[in-house]
Parts: sequence; C-alpha cells; structure tokens
Amino acid sequence: MRVFGVDPGLTRCGFGVVDGGPGRTVRCVAVDVVRTPADEDLSRRLLRLADAVEVWLDRYQPEVVAVERVFSQHNVRTAMGTAQAGGIVALAAARRDLPVMFHTPSEVKAAVTGSGRADKAQVTAMVTKLLGLKVAPKPADAADALALAICHLWRAPMRSRLEQAQARAAELAKAHRARLARAVAETGRKAQ
Amino acid sequence: MRVFGVDPGLTRCGFGVVDGGPGRTVRCVAVDVVRTPADEDLSRRLLRLADAVEVWLDRYQPEVVAVERVFSQHNVRTAMGTAQAGGIVALAAARRDLPVMFHTPSEVKAAVTGSGRADKAQVTAMVTKLLGLKVAPKPADAADALALAICHLWRAPMRSRLEQAQARAAELAKAHRARLARAVAETGRKAQ
Repeated sequence: MRVFGVDPGLTRCGFGVVDGGPGRTVRCVAVDVVRTPADEDLSRRLLRLADAVEVWLDRYQPEVVAVERVFSQHNVRTAMGTAQAGGIVALAAARRDLPVMFHTPSEVKAAVTGSGRADKAQVTAMVTKLLGLKVAPKPADAADALALAICHLWRAPMRSRLEQAQARAAELAKAHRARLARAVAETGRKAQ
Repeated sequence: MRVFGVDPGLTRCGFGVVDGGPGRTVRCVAVDVVRTPADEDLSRRLLRLADAVEVWLDRYQPEVVAVERVFSQHNVRTAMGTAQAGGIVALAAARRDLPVMFHTPSEVKAAVTGSGRADKAQVTAMVTKLLGLKVAPKPADAADALALAICHLWRAPMRSRLEQAQARAAELAKAHRARLARAVAETGRKAQ
C-alpha cells in the first residue's frame, strides 16, 4: 500500500510518500517540503498548496492520504493556518475518492519511536533508520510527513483487525439477545 | 459590487449574496445555509461544502468573497472545522481569481449594528432591516453571512481610502527624506 503523509502547514507543509511492503517493511518514495510566501494572501497560499497536492497525487498515485490532526497550538493564528492546510489536502483527496485518515501527533510519535512523547530529533532519527535513508530528512516537517505515512501503514492493519473484532462482538451480542428473547418467549408460553 | 458572504462551518455554513448600490444601499440576492452530515468523514464533508460553494459561485458570479475570520472558539474541534470550511471557500475563490477578504466577528457586528459586541439577535434584526427583508433570515448563520457581505461592502471603500492615504503619506515621507539628503549633501559641500 502506498501512503501520502502530510504534515500540514502554510509556511512549511511536509509531504512524504511511503510504500508498505510485507510485514513492517517500509520504503521512502518521495519527500519534500512545500513553502508558501508569508506575505501573500491566505487564499493565494492555499491555492499554491492545493496545486502542489494535485501534482503529488498525480505523480505518486497514493492509495490513501494520512494527515496530521491538529488539536491546538499555542499560536491560534498558526493553528488556523495548519487546520486550513490540512483541510485543503483532505479535500483534494476526497475529490479523487481517496480515503483520508487523520492521526494525532502522539499516535505518530508512538508508532515510529514507541513513545507518544518523543521529540522531533527522535522522530527524525527513527524515520531515517526505518526507511534506511542515508541522510536524515530535513526540515522536521519532511520527517514528520514520512512518520505519518509509516504510522498509517502500521496502524491500518491493527485498526482493521480491531474493527473485525468489534463487528464479531456485535454479532455475538445480537445472537445472545435473540437467544434471550426466545427463552423469555418460551417461559411466557409455559407460564400460560 | 456583488459580495458573497460566508459564515464558515461544517455543521452549518451560512451563504449570503448581497449587491451594493449607490451610497450605502444594499440588496439581498440570495441566502441559505449549507449543512453537512456530522456522521460523515471530514474529507467528504469538506467536499460537499466545496461543491456547494462552486454552485453558488457559478450561479451568482460575485466579484468578491468575504469570509468570517476565526480567531478562537471554546471548542477546539469546532474551531478547526470552521477554519477548514473557511479555507475551502477561500481556495474556491482563489481558483477563480476572486479576491477573498476576511473580517472578524466584531468588525461585522460593528459594521451592521454600530457595536462590535452586539448579540446574534441584534445582528439578525439589523440585517433584516438593512436589506428590507419581510422575514428575518434563519438560522443565525444565514443572517451572519449577509452581515459579512454588508460589512465588506461598507468597509471596502473605507479601506481603499485608508490605503490611498497611507500611500500618499509614504510618498510625502519619501520626498521629505530626499530633501533632507540633498540638504545634508549641500552642507557637506559647503563645509569642504
């Protein structure tokens, strides 16, 4: 499966494409950072980003897009720009009928380093190692985009097993309720 | 000038188109609220909204788009959705080379009611009166979208006068610096 990971941002937006192989093997297909000029109108910056996303979706044909979920940031203005950038990416994917998954920063950190509280340097080091890169991806946004894609590759099977287990549990519960209803009905008939 | 005002949101997104006439006259062209299902994927919801925006841009051919600027909200999740919805609208406008202006809620309230701290009922009442509507636009998001468009129509000339004044001041300052430099050079020559 090929995943397009995006660490959203207006000033710097990390793009990373990763292929998942058998087991937990991962391969870096492409990584870059898209920048938009801070002195330009917000709408023009969003357009630049949207155009870059289209180019990458065309070029790399990912099967799924993984975007970092923004919860909050110290700087509200930055958080809004980040949310808007993420929304633009999700929209571009939805237009192509590609599934879009959002992962929180701690999910991403935990997936690649084992700790949800790892720092940027640890994430970069693990991403470099996991993908067998000769040079660490820079800046951190580029490494984060790759980490997101890896996180998605490793969490997706877990998530699907979890969903299967939940579906099976729901089935068993339904069968149990049906048996119970039959038993109650039978008791009622016997009592009459 | 025809303005497309948008009060962004995922659950409810207010759309309002207003024509500005001579002086401060305003006319309501269209108003509605677009809703997207809360149980749908974020990317699908953004796509529904983007499609609705395209329909309105095609149908009403506005010259400018005015969007409410989100600074912060109590609910971070809602704020992110609102920011993303606003970003989608700005992107659609930018794709058509339409200018996009963001106005804060207090700018909008001040423009239509005279007070930046007016409540929703006051804004709705003033919008209804200013546009000569027989029925108050509902829900509040619809009234807010119209208020945004009116705010833009009334602030745009003020803003352009301000920009002209700033440009003139910059010119004067530049001429003054040039005169000063000439005077300094002349003093230097005399001293030699």
